[in-house]
Amino acid sequence: MPASARIPPPVRDKVSDRVLKTIDIVEKFVNEECIPADPVYTVQLGEGNGRWTYPPIMEDLKKKAKNLGLWNMFLAKGHYKEGADFTNLEYGLMCEQFTCGSLRKATNNSAPDTGNVEVLAKYGTDAQKKQWLTPLLNGEIRSCYVTTELDVASSDATNVQLSIKKDGDSYLLNGQKWWISGAGDPRCKLYIVLGKTDPNNSDKYKQQSIILVPSNSPGITVKRMLSAYGYDDAPHGHAHLTFKDARIPEANIILGECRGFEVMQGHMGPGRIHHAMRSIGAAEEALSWLFTRANAEHKKPFGKLLSSQGVILQWIAKSRIEINAARLIVLNAVV
Amino acid sequence: MPASARIPPPVRDKVSDRVLKTIDIVEKFVNEECIPADPVYTVQLGEGNGRWTYPPIMEDLKKKAKNLGLWNMFLAKGHYKEGADFTNLEYGLMCEQFTCGSLRKATNNSAPDTGNVEVLAKYGTDAQKKQWLTPLLNGEIRSCYVTTELDVASSDATNVQLSIKKDGDSYLLNGQKWWISGAGDPRCKLYIVLGKTDPNNSDKYKQQSIILVPSNSPGITVKRMLSAYGYDDAPHGHAHLTFKDARIPEANIILGECRGFEVMQGHMGPGRIHHAMRSIGAAEEALSWLFTRANAEHKKPFGKLLSSQGVILQWIAKSRIEINAARLIVLNAVV
Amino acid sequence: MPASARIPPPVRDKVSDRVLKTIDIVEKFVNEECIPADPVYTVQLGEGNGRWTYPPIMEDLKKKAKNLGLWNMFLAKGHYKEGADFTNLEYGLMCEQFTCGSLRKATNNSAPDTGNVEVLAKYGTDAQKKQWLTPLLNGEIRSCYVTTELDVASSDATNVQLSIKKDGDSYLLNGQKWWISGAGDPRCKLYIVLGKTDPNNSDKYKQQSIILVPSNSPGITVKRMLSAYGYDDAPHGHAHLTFKDARIPEANIILGECRGFEVMQGHMGPGRIHHAMRSIGAAEEALSWLFTRANAEHKKPFGKLLSSQGVILQWIAKSRIEINAARLIVLNAVV
Amino acid sequence: MPASARIPPPVRDKVSDRVLKTIDIVEKFVNEECIPADPVYTVQLGEGNGRWTYPPIMEDLKKKAKNLGLWNMFLAKGHYKEGADFTNLEYGLMCEQFTCGSLRKATNNSAPDTGNVEVLAKYGTDAQKKQWLTPLLNGEIRSCYVTTELDVASSDATNVQLSIKKDGDSYLLNGQKWWISGAGDPRCKLYIVLGKTDPNNSDKYKQQSIILVPSNSPGITVKRMLSAYGYDDAPHGHAHLTFKDARIPEANIILGECRGFEVMQGHMGPGRIHHAMRSIGAAEEALSWLFTRANAEHKKPFGKLLSSQGVILQWIAKSRIEINAARLIVLNAVV
Repeated sequence: MPASARIPPPVRDKVSDRVLKTIDIVEKFVNEECIPADPVYTVQLGEGNGRWTYPPIMEDLKKKAKNLGLWNMFLAKGHYKEGADFTNLEYGLMCEQFTCGSLRKATNNSAPDTGNVEVLAKYGTDAQKKQWLTPLLNGEIRSCYVTTELDVASSDATNVQLSIKKDGDSYLLNGQKWWISGAGDPRCKLYIVLGKTDPNNSDKYKQQSIILVPSNSPGITVKRMLSAYGYDDAPHGHAHLTFKDARIPEANIILGECRGFEVMQGHMGPGRIHHAMRSIGAAEEALSWLFTRANAEHKKPFGKLLSSQGVILQWIAKSRIEINAARLIVLNAVV
Repeated sequence: MPASARIPPPVRDKVSDRVLKTIDIVEKFVNEECIPADPVYTVQLGEGNGRWTYPPIMEDLKKKAKNLGLWNMFLAKGHYKEGADFTNLEYGLMCEQFTCGSLRKATNNSAPDTGNVEVLAKYGTDAQKKQWLTPLLNGEIRSCYVTTELDVASSDATNVQLSIKKDGDSYLLNGQKWWISGAGDPRCKLYIVLGKTDPNNSDKYKQQSIILVPSNSPGITVKRMLSAYGYDDAPHGHAHLTFKDARIPEANIILGECRGFEVMQGHMGPGRIHHAMRSIGAAEEALSWLFTRANAEHKKPFGKLLSSQGVILQWIAKSRIEINAARLIVLNAVV
Repeated sequence: MPASARIPPPVRDKVSDRVLKTIDIVEKFVNEECIPADPVYTVQLGEGNGRWTYPPIMEDLKKKAKNLGLWNMFLAKGHYKEGADFTNLEYGLMCEQFTCGSLRKATNNSAPDTGNVEVLAKYGTDAQKKQWLTPLLNGEIRSCYVTTELDVASSDATNVQLSIKKDGDSYLLNGQKWWISGAGDPRCKLYIVLGKTDPNNSDKYKQQSIILVPSNSPGITVKRMLSAYGYDDAPHGHAHLTFKDARIPEANIILGECRGFEVMQGHMGPGRIHHAMRSIGAAEEALSWLFTRANAEHKKPFGKLLSSQGVILQWIAKSRIEINAARLIVLNAVV
Repeated sequence: MPASARIPPPVRDKVSDRVLKTIDIVEKFVNEECIPADPVYTVQLGEGNGRWTYPPIMEDLKKKAKNLGLWNMFLAKGHYKEGADFTNLEYGLMCEQFTCGSLRKATNNSAPDTGNVEVLAKYGTDAQKKQWLTPLLNGEIRSCYVTTELDVASSDATNVQLSIKKDGDSYLLNGQKWWISGAGDPRCKLYIVLGKTDPNNSDKYKQQSIILVPSNSPGITVKRMLSAYGYDDAPHGHAHLTFKDARIPEANIILGECRGFEVMQGHMGPGRIHHAMRSIGAAEEALSWLFTRANAEHKKPFGKLLSSQGVILQWIAKSRIEINAARLIVLNAVV
């Protein structure tokens, strides 16, 4: 059963044949190109410090994806004039496939670039767009979204402490950030940084600004690469960054001073659906592994297939219900 | 927000304006007629043995329901030629309102009659339909579905032991049944009984037959009324019945001997959706009670509204998600 | 394995042989006297209004219990001079048996009398003790603990509104109470009532008083008997009471005005252990029913014993762990 | 409150003052020596291939531990004549401290050596003990327990396939093993290997044998080091091993051919308690981190301490109950 046929019926009836066809092309691209590319990618990546360069096979995949029309599907025309011709529901349906990491990168739909592109597309000046949006949409450079800090509860963005202080016709940035995803990628040229330009503003939602920071700016140092569940996810990486008198031109501010919180809120909507649908895709994949293990003829503990055990079947049934329910909840939110 | 507006969007788009309008008429009927009728019903019902007669206010409600066109909505034309002009999805949507007991009875949509009507409509002969189906559809008599037994695991219908034995041109029934819902209602005239005509048949799905039994047949005794969670649900009731040489004409068999299991399977489909949607309606009502209690100004333990406690809010949020998910799962199964 | 042998070893080593022997006598009394008495009790109780008299078999059981030395075990000598020669740990161990209702009543260890006896033993004057404590300890009368109200969050006892107002050398009581357990028993002669003598006291823990109220005082009416999970628990019952200018002598106050909250706190300690251990006994009994059902040879759905299903075994294993853990937690709190 | 005072009272009463004192010495050693040693260990370990050598600070810790009498506490005299003077309950109580990795290694109580020592102490010949047990007990060498295989369900030990075939006066080993913990340690000199000497034996519990294998035997290769949750746990490590005609003297068999399953069962008892109590110690530590975070003054999302949120307090309360219950269950099993 192709991916398009697995969409819940009342939702499937809402999307065009073109979208259904694209969903199946995505699935075919995953099976025929991305999955076979994975071991090549691993070998090219290598070990030790060599891991922080970019495996060349990704450029091949990108060319193939572009030829299939699979490029920048995330940027819904409904939201941005530069957008692809898909609604957020339509791209959301594709996102179930995007649990395959190679696919995200090959089609230029990988986070955090997708959210960053949305910021630039929605709030950027023409100059900012020319410098950063165009090469991001072309897949020529990568970017980071730089918000989380060590010393404050960063789930509440009003708490960030990094200082952005006017100094002549530029800003000086001072502070620390961590868990900055993608900062290990050698192609990462742009940091989109949240900090405070007006820490004493009586309106706590007006204290913050967002500024575009070239990743090679003097004063910025990668202090160390962090690991998540033990993995450093090279060459993507999650960095601890320090800013010491990093000088950034005033033209790099987004929308204007004190509008940082507003910008953050503005770019988060579509991504919620994307993240949710990718999680559902990951859950489907995990469940398929459970099926495979439960029916593995050569792996019978105590002489019986795991799938002959009622408890295992109960796990599978419960997972099936939970995944279906989650998918319907998410899609219903965006229909 | 009227009931029709609370239907999940992709499902709502599948149903006609007539159905949406009917759903809102049902809701209005519940609020304006059924809920006010409840205390009158309770007073008319009384206590002690008097509880086993039928409160006259129900006949008033029935007339009002018929005038509003709210009658026998459960019998989908898609399934039966006698059916109402609603699909099972459409009636399923109405079922969320049917947690109000008076509503079910007033509109002739109450179990177990609904399932029994389906059996007669689908499998009955013309004579059987004339004798039983017509008065059931008119709301003149009530019926029971008689399957569960004391001494066997009745969740597996092949286990039933009640004997249905040919004797001349009639059958003799011997055995016991319990948890027979509706047997306390003085208007109950029909038992639809599952038993065994051929207990030694090598095909265990061919041993059973279903037969139509007048409730006043000699040899049948109500041994006692049972309670569920302490309630006897008078005047509906749940009975323990004994059959001792109860003689039933052979023409009362449904479809023919040895087809009992087949008949049971055939009548269970639509009801699964009805039960599920009534349960969801009950869950919505329970959640609304939680809202009311959590915000009761006069019931503040330790000086604070319950709704100011995070744990209570977590209960509410979790319940909201679970109910929405369940509704989407059920409706998606029938769209 | 007798009950004494099922006590967790490190706890068993803490109790004397006399206690272990008593625990086994209790178990024998349950099996040989109380369980056989249950059907007699039910027949004697009857139906309808007759249910609110007391079945005579209970007096027989009481005599037998007294002869075995099983009487008032709850009132620990460590707490009260009138107490039995058991610590709260020792009686707590016996409480696992007290899930059998007949046992509680036959041995004079039934709630709410146990807590009420503790109040009188700890805080009563000699006159109060003579009038109420002696006949309660003799099992001649029964009593209620009257705190919960309709219109306030009664889990917070500072909220109670019933007015206790000085009028000459007596008090006038006005207000309503509900869920008053034991008020249906014809032998109930005493209400221990919580209300407010000083509703404007700035210390909200000094507003309340507790007063001893003869159940037949003019001005007190049983408005109706309530049901819990559908059951009215006759002849014990749970009542809704109204108080209208009920006049009570001032000598009936416990400890003095404004000490009601203090009295409540004082009598609640030992009962926490008793309730917990009775619950654990009930859980053990429920688990034993699960064993019985899972191994019932004549109740095999789909041809297999329930105990051959892994999911059922998982339920049993999880229940076993949870009950053992709960017992250890409770006993460790009192060792 | 020192560690000895946190032991549940009925269990504490079962252990001697010497044991309580030792438990407090262990706690002091953790706080004053092991925790300060952790950052030194990390620096000495280094990165890249250097990680697979052993940090010298561990030898210092071992000397200090020996001076404090903290050495080989796991080997209960009740079980083995070489054992320390602690029962399994007493060492189990100490195990709550052993969540600190440095402590396990410094005191020679680290897995898998503890279980391996038990095998040698219980089943080894004098020659085997002299060659392997003495240096293990002295902490001079390390060892692995080699059972799990890639291609079979290894939770059922009867499934192992590695071939142990007699060839003259030695055995030839052929097959693969993985998840072999400790195989990365440069001091690891001994593999205790489970395989099949008699794969066609009609008794499936007699097919297996266990043999002592010097880790540097020709024919054995470390194919790769695996990671667990992303971590390779260097220099300990978890290896994938291959055996190709590895020749081992026949004197290295444990107990004799076909007794492998018996040996496995024999050495698993005490370790169950050790693992459980270490897990409980880890849970306590995790809960202490939750306390710390919930009360972190500088990390207040949305202006409030996390500990002011009821949901967080509920997590803490539930965790407290679960940990206490688990500890009582485990200790009750061994008292």
